[in-house]
Amino acid sequence: MLYLPQNLIMKIVSVGTVAFDAIETPFGKTDKIVGGACTYISLSAAYFNDSPNLISVVGEDFPKETIDLFKKRGINTEGLQIKEGEKTFFWSGKYHQDMNTRDTIDTQLNVLESFDPIVPNSYQDCDILMLGNLTPSVQMKVIQQMETRPKLIVLDTMNFWMEIAMDDLKEVIKQIDVLTINDEEARLLSGEHSLRKAAKIILQMGPKYLIIKKGEHGALLFGDNNIFYAPALPLEEVFDPTGAGDTFAGGFVGHLSTCDSINWEAMKKAIIVGSAMASFTVEKFGIERLVALDENQIEERINEFKKLVSFN
Amino acid sequence: MLYLPQNLIMKIVSVGTVAFDAIETPFGKTDKIVGGACTYISLSAAYFNDSPNLISVVGEDFPKETIDLFKKRGINTEGLQIKEGEKTFFWSGKYHQDMNTRDTIDTQLNVLESFDPIVPNSYQDCDILMLGNLTPSVQMKVIQQMETRPKLIVLDTMNFWMEIAMDDLKEVIKQIDVLTINDEEARLLSGEHSLRKAAKIILQMGPKYLIIKKGEHGALLFGDNNIFYAPALPLEEVFDPTGAGDTFAGGFVGHLSTCDSINWEAMKKAIIVGSAMASFTVEKFGIERLVALDENQIEERINEFKKLVSFN
Repeated sequence: MLYLPQNLIMKIVSVGTVAFDAIETPFGKTDKIVGGACTYISLSAAYFNDSPNLISVVGEDFPKETIDLFKKRGINTEGLQIKEGEKTFFWSGKYHQDMNTRDTIDTQLNVLESFDPIVPNSYQDCDILMLGNLTPSVQMKVIQQMETRPKLIVLDTMNFWMEIAMDDLKEVIKQIDVLTINDEEARLLSGEHSLRKAAKIILQMGPKYLIIKKGEHGALLFGDNNIFYAPALPLEEVFDPTGAGDTFAGGFVGHLSTCDSINWEAMKKAIIVGSAMASFTVEKFGIERLVALDENQIEERINEFKKLVSFN
Repeated sequence: MLYLPQNLIMKIVSVGTVAFDAIETPFGKTDKIVGGACTYISLSAAYFNDSPNLISVVGEDFPKETIDLFKKRGINTEGLQIKEGEKTFFWSGKYHQDMNTRDTIDTQLNVLESFDPIVPNSYQDCDILMLGNLTPSVQMKVIQQMETRPKLIVLDTMNFWMEIAMDDLKEVIKQIDVLTINDEEARLLSGEHSLRKAAKIILQMGPKYLIIKKGEHGALLFGDNNIFYAPALPLEEVFDPTGAGDTFAGGFVGHLSTCDSINWEAMKKAIIVGSAMASFTVEKFGIERLVALDENQIEERINEFKKLVSFN
């Protein structure tokens, strides 16, 4: 049910980290496991799109099995640079009891320090460009390499870049169609506490649509002089929130790539699909749950979201 | 549109404070103004029910104009005790920048200290009993005076009673059908962080339904092995959150009193109506906005809530 014939699906290119994470939550602790924004984005999108294109960089320590997994899922890894003699980006963090906040314990940039993204020729004619959380100037470099402007450019970012590279970030935000950030970041970027006022200001910075992710409180979509509130499914347990936002983004662009046209109605459904995908990722550590889904489970979860808000 | 013929409307009895508040928010400051849980509940319910019955106590300093306002709105004040020579309950508080948290600056119990609620004969045959936030033992006294058990008993409470009177609170919770609390209180009452797990535990304590109010993040309804997520309308400005929860409760029981039967579908709509009513109250200080509504505004706001979550 999730796949359309190839010729009807829009072409997705995603940029972001492919990395190692070590995570501690109130429920447990992992050693180095595979993570990274573009890992989650691509694996999530691959449930809807039979050939999402990935741009990233890893070191020679990155497991071949994961690259094989990408390929098996139809993910095009031509844009994945593998740097011999270098090490993969590593992040380690610990979540607080409430699971909404976390401390970074260690960040080793490694290959990311000199990451110069190269868009392969086969990635041109991209319909949907998904810029995962990265240095804004690197995100910009990818936009600039696109020979024709994608139909839709989606950008994810975080407070860190607002603090140390706000000017670069504002430049890239001018070029995009959809910005995805969380509520605190929306407040930081706009200087407004009210999310409705914040959205107004941010929509004047360039994007046509703004998605404000509120974790366990759902997500808001602003644009077309309209607001949509996507709920979050209350879960028995949020085991590990790492990658939830990226899984959301992957489901979002994945669903949009199957739509006849990208408009308000398509956006709303895409946010529900993204939320449903993210609700799986948080159930286990890393990509464990995300890679183990089947189409029925996804359809069922999307229906749960529908039921959650429907009333007469 | 909001009124049904008198004989089809269920009888509501509400208990709670009728009081003075002095409020400071980031947007301004009030002197002593009229407030109190039962004030908001009754004024809100009166848009849906032509004769809600109020039980409360005030001192001789309470303005006659407000009591006249109650009567003008159809609110039956036979259960309002006016204590000569005594003073009305007074609360003063200051909201933090985020508007979700507040400090109590002053509490003068006054008439509330010895409040002994008396249910007038004319309040018997009550269909819906709304127990506003009060000492649990006082809430219990009202239940005990009901000659026939109401069809629906709704109870609102707060963390304060969980801290100083948990045993009494648990006793009264055993007797009720719907409990309304916020997310932190649900965690405190159940000892569980996950709201889904918290709900399971609380629903074993007595109530058939649990409503978890999450302020700007909406509200969750648990019960009948089901979950419903009511969104909150993102507002330009939340001016003063005081009374939002009570206005919600008033709209909730007000709507239910017009329903053929009280079931899951009715509950869901009632929560949307309650949320819509609460979204007005927070737009101005005290009851100012709540008393100035017309039916069209209410209907429009309810439609905004519908639109906010609808997708294909």
